Amino acid sequence: MRIDGERLNDNIQQLGEIGYRAGEGVTRLALGEEDMRARRWLEGRMQEAGLQVRTDAAANMIGRLPCGRPEADCVVIGSHLDTVPQGGRYDGALGVLAGLEVAQICRENGIQLPWDLEVINFTDEEGHHYAGTFGSRAMMEGARDEDLHRSRMEGVPTLAEDLRAVGVDPECLFQARRDPDGIRAYLELHIEQGSRMEEEGIDVAAVTGIVGIYRYQVTVEGEANHAGTTSMHDRDDALVKATLPIQLLPEWARARSDEMVATVGQVFVEPGAVNIIPARCDFTVELRSLESEDMARVRDRLHCWLAENDAGEMHTVFEKDGDLLDDELTDIIIDQGAAEDFAVARLPSGAGHDAQSFASCSVPTGMIFIPSRGGLSHCPEEYSEPEWVTAGGQVLLRSVLELARRDGQGSTVQPRCGD
Amino acid sequence: MRIDGERLNDNIQQLGEIGYRAGEGVTRLALGEEDMRARRWLEGRMQEAGLQVRTDAAANMIGRLPCGRPEADCVVIGSHLDTVPQGGRYDGALGVLAGLEVAQICRENGIQLPWDLEVINFTDEEGHHYAGTFGSRAMMEGARDEDLHRSRMEGVPTLAEDLRAVGVDPECLFQARRDPDGIRAYLELHIEQGSRMEEEGIDVAAVTGIVGIYRYQVTVEGEANHAGTTSMHDRDDALVKATLPIQLLPEWARARSDEMVATVGQVFVEPGAVNIIPARCDFTVELRSLESEDMARVRDRLHCWLAENDAGEMHTVFEKDGDLLDDELTDIIIDQGAAEDFAVARLPSGAGHDAQSFASCSVPTGMIFIPSRGGLSHCPEEYSEPEWVTAGGQVLLRSVLELARRDGQGSTVQPRCGD
Repeated sequence: MRIDGERLNDNIQQLGEIGYRAGEGVTRLALGEEDMRARRWLEGRMQEAGLQVRTDAAANMIGRLPCGRPEADCVVIGSHLDTVPQGGRYDGALGVLAGLEVAQICRENGIQLPWDLEVINFTDEEGHHYAGTFGSRAMMEGARDEDLHRSRMEGVPTLAEDLRAVGVDPECLFQARRDPDGIRAYLELHIEQGSRMEEEGIDVAAVTGIVGIYRYQVTVEGEANHAGTTSMHDRDDALVKATLPIQLLPEWARARSDEMVATVGQVFVEPGAVNIIPARCDFTVELRSLESEDMARVRDRLHCWLAENDAGEMHTVFEKDGDLLDDELTDIIIDQGAAEDFAVARLPSGAGHDAQSFASCSVPTGMIFIPSRGGLSHCPEEYSEPEWVTAGGQVLLRSVLELARRDGQGSTVQPRCGD
Repeated sequence: MRIDGERLNDNIQQLGEIGYRAGEGVTRLALGEEDMRARRWLEGRMQEAGLQVRTDAAANMIGRLPCGRPEADCVVIGSHLDTVPQGGRYDGALGVLAGLEVAQICRENGIQLPWDLEVINFTDEEGHHYAGTFGSRAMMEGARDEDLHRSRMEGVPTLAEDLRAVGVDPECLFQARRDPDGIRAYLELHIEQGSRMEEEGIDVAAVTGIVGIYRYQVTVEGEANHAGTTSMHDRDDALVKATLPIQLLPEWARARSDEMVATVGQVFVEPGAVNIIPARCDFTVELRSLESEDMARVRDRLHCWLAENDAGEMHTVFEKDGDLLDDELTDIIIDQGAAEDFAVARLPSGAGHDAQSFASCSVPTGMIFIPSRGGLSHCPEEYSEPEWVTAGGQVLLRSVLELARRDGQGSTVQPRCGD
């Protein structure tokens, strides 16, 4: 059995017109006008595909292909339609539309699955309002007050405000929460957002885990003084001191492992005048790795370096460990990809995804990556070839069918993969 | 003949109450309420001292002790009463009040000088409105349109607006300009604003020149990308690249000379998100030295480094060469200081001063420095001991009298220095 690759790619291009502006890519901020248009478009597609559509208390859109048994478990295929400002057509959209394609193919072929199949478009994965993966977290962990009522920056409404604006009562958010025990598995197809697959010629990857993120705020202090009258040997320049750890961090990360990354993305210098020696330099540090020990070691090196050089202080913003994905599902993805003669590999995910909300609640979770051209994402240049999209969708379909076969309990389904 | 050191120090403390707030030092922004109060206070003092007070078309306050000969040249002793926000009691104020003290002593002692003696409080030396040393430049070079109508930052009125608010018509500014040929000499007493004099036990210094300033804007470009999915070896991180020249600049400056300084005071990173690899890092470079060749060489090294490493571009904001002060006046200052048994030295000035406006127009210009405790200035901690103040004022008086003696042309004056 094969997905309809043309239909899937066509859907991606159609959806990609919503919020598109020439030169600026696609902008569908969560719960904004374009996102709501995309939701209405998706609702139509889901209905055409024969799915039962509803919106839950967190504004997540759920299209269900019921198996007919009351109290049946479900398998969820999810991702999101919202984008970052001036983003691309693939991040998120691919996963939702591939789920729709899989459900549609199953229905069209009269496949009797041993569980309900749900295709979900989660609310605000990109964190337009505050933190990311809001909808999937509301479903699995419950919503947090800070997510609802804190704004990411001035001018951005709170989630509570935007939920109300689209007719969802934030007071009832708790109703979105679901029992992980009722979810047999979670699957998500996504673009890699890195360049490794393309560089190494990998067609389809099974994600081994979603990296943890440790974030810190570092303050290096010096002494402000007149940039003209203070000789070089009398200076205590906070910026010059701060350049050293900013250079060392990438080296320390590389020394730990190939998978680990370390980034300084924000720097602020005070007083910040062209003719005053910097008294203070604040910068952010973000570490990512599947291995918490790697992040802890680099954190400790930075901490020691700052202490030994009496150079400053670091403050922990948060330390979130990585989530390993399900071995069985990962094996299924690899096997199904190999059966299609795709070049397959196991890779960690450096970015967070809705899948993480399920994995961290012990729902068996699997993720499939297809390559991103040039590793680019969150930008108008984001692109994946139609054949890559089709390959990813096909492996997703095969994985659902293989899981169904294993769960079949002697029931009706014996899909013949590879047809 | 001696100045009245007690009166001079008392005047400094009285003036230092205007705009003073506990913990925040002195704030007298040019032409603001506190500056205008200081001007009214100074006007009273000048009148008590028997000077003829007027305000010119650039709002410079001029107190004149006439020699009685029409068409006589004049000697100017000047500085400024305005301060930076949260500044100190000495920067600028010392020079104006020492000039007042010298004029008052001359008058009290019936000294007949061979020229008019003018004590001037120049407008906006600190550059509150836009560029610095506005009043002295308006007097010597003429005012530039950009000085008048450009605001330093949002919320700060333009000079034209503030001049109008205090009753000065900016259209008539050209009337402030004076013929350098009519000015026999310019003298200014100022605090060092560095720590060298205190460290080396120098009581009084003659300034050999005012350093030049070369300013640049450097842009280092990289590629923005996802901080989680882009492996360390795939990155082109503009910030990490920029740290190298920021570290090298101080070394290059030190390698040229002990007097040279190089400062990076502003850094901006784009897009400036904690989870995005920096695509661009902009920073300012300021070089100061009496020797233009030193600045040019460091500029060229930076330029070559950026080109060789394909790291970015630099844009010249301005290149202003240093101004050497007058040898005769410098020798007089050294001799008069030595005659008082002070430890004297010749030093360059790392900061700009009103003196520079005169020196650059070929007016014979001399500057006297006294030590700044801890090298601190432009801050509430700015301090010079009363005996240092008196020493500086005494050398200023002796220098005026010595110049008068040399210019005496057989006229009446034969002041006995050291009385």
